Amino acid sequence: MTPALTPAVMPADIRAAAQRIAGHVRVTPIMHVAASEFDLPFANALTLKLELLQHVGSFKPRGAFNRVQAAGQLPAAGLVAASGGNHGAAVAFVARSLGIRAEVFVPSSSPAMKRDRIAALGATVHVVDGLYDDAQVAAIKRQIETGALAVHPFEHPDVVAGQGTMSLELETQMASAQEGMGFDTVLVASGGGGFTAGQAAWFEGRKRVVSVEPITSQCLNAARLAGEPVDVTVAGLASDSLGARRLGSVAWSIVHPYVAHSVVVDDDAIRAAQKVLWDRLRLIVEPGGATALAALQSRAYVPEADERMVVVVCGANCDPATVTG
Amino acid sequence: MTPALTPAVMPADIRAAAQRIAGHVRVTPIMHVAASEFDLPFANALTLKLELLQHVGSFKPRGAFNRVQAAGQLPAAGLVAASGGNHGAAVAFVARSLGIRAEVFVPSSSPAMKRDRIAALGATVHVVDGLYDDAQVAAIKRQIETGALAVHPFEHPDVVAGQGTMSLELETQMASAQEGMGFDTVLVASGGGGFTAGQAAWFEGRKRVVSVEPITSQCLNAARLAGEPVDVTVAGLASDSLGARRLGSVAWSIVHPYVAHSVVVDDDAIRAAQKVLWDRLRLIVEPGGATALAALQSRAYVPEADERMVVVVCGANCDPATVTG
Repeated sequence: MTPALTPAVMPADIRAAAQRIAGHVRVTPIMHVAASEFDLPFANALTLKLELLQHVGSFKPRGAFNRVQAAGQLPAAGLVAASGGNHGAAVAFVARSLGIRAEVFVPSSSPAMKRDRIAALGATVHVVDGLYDDAQVAAIKRQIETGALAVHPFEHPDVVAGQGTMSLELETQMASAQEGMGFDTVLVASGGGGFTAGQAAWFEGRKRVVSVEPITSQCLNAARLAGEPVDVTVAGLASDSLGARRLGSVAWSIVHPYVAHSVVVDDDAIRAAQKVLWDRLRLIVEPGGATALAALQSRAYVPEADERMVVVVCGANCDPATVTG
Repeated sequence: MTPALTPAVMPADIRAAAQRIAGHVRVTPIMHVAASEFDLPFANALTLKLELLQHVGSFKPRGAFNRVQAAGQLPAAGLVAASGGNHGAAVAFVARSLGIRAEVFVPSSSPAMKRDRIAALGATVHVVDGLYDDAQVAAIKRQIETGALAVHPFEHPDVVAGQGTMSLELETQMASAQEGMGFDTVLVASGGGGFTAGQAAWFEGRKRVVSVEPITSQCLNAARLAGEPVDVTVAGLASDSLGARRLGSVAWSIVHPYVAHSVVVDDDAIRAAQKVLWDRLRLIVEPGGATALAALQSRAYVPEADERMVVVVCGANCDPATVTG
């Protein structure tokens, strides 16, 4: 039997995070669309949260900013992180915004385009032979050497609380005079689980949070099946942003009580979601950013009648030619 | 001396248009950004109106829908229009939405990609040797033959009133509980003047509407200088969407009393605006859609201290490789 877990992040933490990071992150727009516009075979209310318009093209600055702002006095060595992708760019962006240093360890497997972006944001980039885990080991060693603040992509309550500010913002937007719309369900893509956990921590079961993962990299779904985080293999189209080997324990403390729906989609479904987002909205969306919508298109998640849904489109960073070509 | 003109479109027409087209067009999001994010050398409040997220990637369905919905009983022959670009796609989209026929006459000079899009939306595409004017002549001939409803891109009060619904929507959004922001100025790109006139007709001088045109195709600016619409040459990067030879007379009846600021930008400025919108927001924006922002970047328009600005990003339809390459 799974022991009862205390959620590592509570709504009050997310409110505090929102105050900390206000002005440092963008309020990203929502947009109501008709399900039929996306060829979905149902008439449920559908809203897109366009979090891909966040700074550096993903939700990651929310968590990174909160982690850094909550840390108090920062070490002279600045920030250190491991990531070849969106988190690395977010840490570099945070450092530049605050006028501090950042070192980012990127695996040699990560695309040169993403590395260059991190460097262009002013961070020192160290390329580490191997995969993400190797880069993470190098980052930890460096942290011990320099005393820099380590900013993990998901395994810290302040990071998860920062990510959760998206749902606080979303709920405010949906309730505003202009919108005045209720909603029942939020579909989000899961990698290490920090983003999904942040949203679930905010809602505490008041809304249904549906986790969507690639079938080739499904650590959240596996944790739910196993009753605890377990190692999974990682592969596929969206693995550059969603490819975590194991769900974070911080995330699990929230996912376990609050996320009762997790589904998986295959790469064809993700590709189809990218295509439809370009065709109908002219948005370039990276595979991980289109994964939540893919659950509706592929019918991995089938809404109930009258279930009002929000789909989070959470990342933009890919070569447009891979979407439009 | 220029005789006094009666504006062909009044705010009441725009309110009526908004009711007619509600549900047929999208409410497009606004987004508050910091001027510094776009490397602008001032600290004025800046909001983007993301009208490029409208159906078929431009504002054009607003005007086309209102024209068609206001026309009453539609002829069996459906709609006819001339356009190789955004207006053609909008007319095809309107026809498909309403389950009626559309014929679109496109000049042979228009890119195959845009033609294909119009056909993919279900319209019958006729390619006419020559430029836009040749296609327009062919469309008029066809209208006489078939009795179809001609939908002109800008020279009709119902089209202009439809375009003006964007500013009604914008003003509601800016005033909503969530936003609660005032604004002073709206920067818009001008082609034949219908879009700019629609916004100016809504505000009636309550806000400053700044028209921005390519220096290579500036029929609105030329009309203001000459005191009446005059023919101009048409060329340059944005001419596929903004390249009108002469400002419309409907537009002029509104521009003349209400648009006191018009500026021009060169192709380098437009290209730079496209680049910055991709780099900072991951938006693919066509040249005409980036033209309004180009006025700020190039300092063709320099705001006063405390002048709160809205920049309309009004079109998405271009090959991403031309933006990111």
